[in-house]
Amino acid sequence: MDVVRLTENWAEPPGPVSHVVISSRVRLARNLERIVFPPHADSKDLRQVCEAVDRLIRSEAALKEFARIDIGACRAVERMFLRENHIISPELEQGGEFRVLHFDPKRSCAIMVNEEDHLRMYCLRSGLQLTAAWEEIHAVDTVVGRSLCYACSDKYGFLTACPTNVGTGMRASVMLHLPGLVMTRQMDEIIKTIPHHGLAVRGYYGENSEFLGDFYQISNEVTLGKTDVEILEGLQKFIERLVSREEAARASLLDKRHWQVEDVIWRAYGVLTHARIMSSKEAFQLLSPIRLGIERGYFPTLTHHRLNRFIVAMQPGHLQIAEGSEMPPVERGLARARFLRSVFSELKTAN
Amino acid sequence: MDVVRLTENWAEPPGPVSHVVISSRVRLARNLERIVFPPHADSKDLRQVCEAVDRLIRSEAALKEFARIDIGACRAVERMFLRENHIISPELEQGGEFRVLHFDPKRSCAIMVNEEDHLRMYCLRSGLQLTAAWEEIHAVDTVVGRSLCYACSDKYGFLTACPTNVGTGMRASVMLHLPGLVMTRQMDEIIKTIPHHGLAVRGYYGENSEFLGDFYQISNEVTLGKTDVEILEGLQKFIERLVSREEAARASLLDKRHWQVEDVIWRAYGVLTHARIMSSKEAFQLLSPIRLGIERGYFPTLTHHRLNRFIVAMQPGHLQIAEGSEMPPVERGLARARFLRSVFSELKTAN
Repeated sequence: MDVVRLTENWAEPPGPVSHVVISSRVRLARNLERIVFPPHADSKDLRQVCEAVDRLIRSEAALKEFARIDIGACRAVERMFLRENHIISPELEQGGEFRVLHFDPKRSCAIMVNEEDHLRMYCLRSGLQLTAAWEEIHAVDTVVGRSLCYACSDKYGFLTACPTNVGTGMRASVMLHLPGLVMTRQMDEIIKTIPHHGLAVRGYYGENSEFLGDFYQISNEVTLGKTDVEILEGLQKFIERLVSREEAARASLLDKRHWQVEDVIWRAYGVLTHARIMSSKEAFQLLSPIRLGIERGYFPTLTHHRLNRFIVAMQPGHLQIAEGSEMPPVERGLARARFLRSVFSELKTAN
Repeated sequence: MDVVRLTENWAEPPGPVSHVVISSRVRLARNLERIVFPPHADSKDLRQVCEAVDRLIRSEAALKEFARIDIGACRAVERMFLRENHIISPELEQGGEFRVLHFDPKRSCAIMVNEEDHLRMYCLRSGLQLTAAWEEIHAVDTVVGRSLCYACSDKYGFLTACPTNVGTGMRASVMLHLPGLVMTRQMDEIIKTIPHHGLAVRGYYGENSEFLGDFYQISNEVTLGKTDVEILEGLQKFIERLVSREEAARASLLDKRHWQVEDVIWRAYGVLTHARIMSSKEAFQLLSPIRLGIERGYFPTLTHHRLNRFIVAMQPGHLQIAEGSEMPPVERGLARARFLRSVFSELKTAN
């Protein structure tokens, strides 16, 4: 399948601070001048945007590595597969005419066409790499902005379909794994303070998703009245402090209640290697302590990066593509357990 | 330690229907004429009973195999050990002056002296063996009753400290393992009907204990107006019907939802072989599906009888005696997980 083949090298090798930070992502929302924004656009408008971007990509040497996927022509399971890889957003997963993804796996950059805005351009990096991600997508934005006229206001900056994006149009986000802060019961307090920093916190699946497996996505909430660089610096500092607190929490747990940490890790491993049916929610919750186990040296052949791939691969779209057929939930639960049992039973373990 | 050495052969090889029935027990409550019953007795009364039983046991050839343990002189952990083996009752575990246990491990018979009644004599058998247990303890009762004068009324029968035992003084009980009826959600309904049969249902630890690990103790409630044999027949019939229903429930589960049964069994095994700390309550709940796994052939070297021993051996008194020291709850939880990990990791498994 094209979608699978084209995107299989999407995931980068692990980046800095990967024991706590899964990934960093910077996305820019842009719209074209004089064309109705997608939420109110008709077919003609959407086609116009789509064709303008296609022409641009063909003509710009800097964008020649971008591959094109017509999202509207994908099967539901393929769109699911792309969303589970964080390549497209839940909004674009809905599909529809003139919804297109242009992406460059080598740079982990992509342009989603006719999502909530005409263009949603982003760069996704492993570990804590906000600046690198921003530089990469900023370079793409510069090239695109030279050819296409962005809807812009002198007073507000870039105009967007939703007012929460007006200004820089930038949303920078970091996916974190914070089991130490959860186990030491500090996380509820931290979540309460996040809005005071102009930031927002979400679950693994983004907006409106629940907190699962100690994964938290933190992003800037403010897009107006600050520059991209100021916003990135604020987020970076906040994340660095959070990483230090997470490290301190893990150290204190290992110092005072090491058996509790060991218990959680080994129980998760015991269930992953033996369960016969499993929901993706439970799998999330079990894969979380396994990340801690990597750090403790319990799984000498497992890397954070490979574990991240398991988290993606056990999701419904990936499972169905791997099995080559659409499956009802019970069948998926059986296939998920079979997959996890097989990968974890093969792992070397050390005590 | 004497208590351990004297009682280590207590548990019999497995009896009939052992895939559902753990054990059968018949006990007789008796009191001596003209001596105040234990709840209101003073030291002199208790001593008098105690000495009368000691003399009797020394003089009767039929009772010469009985060993004697002075419960009042035992350490708390030893009394706990005896109660966990179902050799003494929770009441006798409290200890005190002139509380004595006479027991014959070969016949699984015992006489508790100065429990709630002067004498509580019982026989405990593996599997469904109500009649055999009754015959054994009836023989002991005949010998004892020839020498000691029981408190008795022509109108009521045997007199006891609590009116619920008056009449036959007999309580026959069966410990069952009913995971099929629990998983098919029939158990709540069955529990409601039990009193209509003149029977009572309790948890693994008897009176006022919660239902744990799908273990249920069913016993006669009525002791008045029926003979021992009539009561035993009624209980036996009820248990036989229940065993059939449990077998049908297991068959239906394996037919329609075999993956659910397999999942529960293998998850339990996965946790037992990997957890680092465990409460006895959780251990109960995990050992329950392992019993089902024996039947399914997953653990070729494990027998119901050996599993029953694990259930006893993971309890606080046994753990502390095995480790040779008294332990606070966290240490016990660690020792319990260590014990279960070690015995289950050594097991052969088959799929």
